[in-house]
Amino acid sequence: MAAAAPPPPPTAAPFTLPESDPSGNTLFTRIRLATVYDVPHIHKLIHEMAVFERLAHLCEATPESLANTLFPPNPPPPFTSFTVFLLELSYTPFPPTPQNAQFTPILKSIHLELPVEDPEREAFRSKAIDVNVLGNDVIVGGFVLFFPNYSTFLAKPGLYIEDIFVRECYRRKGLGKVLLSAVVSQAAKMGYGRVEWVVLDWNVNAITFYEQMGAQILPEWKICRLTGDALQAYAHTNI
Amino acid sequence: MAAAAPPPPPTAAPFTLPESDPSGNTLFTRIRLATVYDVPHIHKLIHEMAVFERLAHLCEATPESLANTLFPPNPPPPFTSFTVFLLELSYTPFPPTPQNAQFTPILKSIHLELPVEDPEREAFRSKAIDVNVLGNDVIVGGFVLFFPNYSTFLAKPGLYIEDIFVRECYRRKGLGKVLLSAVVSQAAKMGYGRVEWVVLDWNVNAITFYEQMGAQILPEWKICRLTGDALQAYAHTNI
Repeated sequence: MAAAAPPPPPTAAPFTLPESDPSGNTLFTRIRLATVYDVPHIHKLIHEMAVFERLAHLCEATPESLANTLFPPNPPPPFTSFTVFLLELSYTPFPPTPQNAQFTPILKSIHLELPVEDPEREAFRSKAIDVNVLGNDVIVGGFVLFFPNYSTFLAKPGLYIEDIFVRECYRRKGLGKVLLSAVVSQAAKMGYGRVEWVVLDWNVNAITFYEQMGAQILPEWKICRLTGDALQAYAHTNI
Repeated sequence: MAAAAPPPPPTAAPFTLPESDPSGNTLFTRIRLATVYDVPHIHKLIHEMAVFERLAHLCEATPESLANTLFPPNPPPPFTSFTVFLLELSYTPFPPTPQNAQFTPILKSIHLELPVEDPEREAFRSKAIDVNVLGNDVIVGGFVLFFPNYSTFLAKPGLYIEDIFVRECYRRKGLGKVLLSAVVSQAAKMGYGRVEWVVLDWNVNAITFYEQMGAQILPEWKICRLTGDALQAYAHTNI
């Protein structure tokens, strides 16, 4: 009887992400470790962040000083010192990751209502070798800079996020979360105890976002900073 | 005529610090890099700090976890990662520093009205090889744990102080300042841009002390912390 039964109706093919979206409205994202070749972009991103925070007059970073301090000769292994993740964006999928990478890039995709008008597309074309070789049109959209910190109570390292920044035309699309979750995932992978960062107390939207992701805001702690002439004076009167 | 003039009256000998103070009221201090042999003392100091802060229930550090994370195999050079300075105290002067030290210990001395009654003298006898060989009676009085941080605006590293602690019987003698100034001097020596730490906002005495030394207290910044189950949950829902 079973053999005589009519064949079942054809079912829909399982959904697969298209290799490329003909509408051009899928934005492919990649988080990868920055290299010294990315310094001009990192410098521009830091400068744009300073302008956004109305603190450009305090920004002394140059491409040279960034290269010297972030990518020294004989660099320590990734994540043991100052580390930069770059956010790259493309309307075509990224190529497969080489096996020998120190960090396996994180690939995601997001759907956009409309493609993004990027007025600085040329200035932020990625310097990644793999995408340049393939002729892909990959743009740097943001960065996060972080480094290890340490909790004596946990006797464990953690990761401290110094800066997280998404270029203006790419905001409100979840890309800050893509950067933040890359750092959190890395901390979890290494068995680290905490991820920490700071927020301005008037930035209510950011505080709400951080609380929703499960972060505690520690209201009682204040940052103390000794810098510039005061640092030099204290160092030299107390030798 | 000059030859016939009477000899000038004897002048007072130039003042020199006595090698040892017979009254026993000069406390000699030494700041040195901690080693893995100091871990039992570092663990006891962290535990005493947690009790002082009424946070002993949050202190998970064990000698093993501290040794693994602060003194790993193939340790990075001093000051490039988590670094501990120990404060040692003695009523006799410290021996000369060996030339091959990675960090030249900082020696000072302070005058006490009365010698300190130290109820834990035996438990905190220093593990430093040089003083043990000489049979000196050197006691560990406190510690500071710090590590590099980074300012993108300065494009310079700084030093972040996670913990600074002086044992109760040695407080109010300027020893916290001895520890703090050792870190500040090290930052200045390396050309670093800042020294930073945090303070509880109700700790008015500490805030006044920090402001007097020239530190800025940054009122607007709040610390955000993702830890424990919330960190794991966020890491695993965002891969």
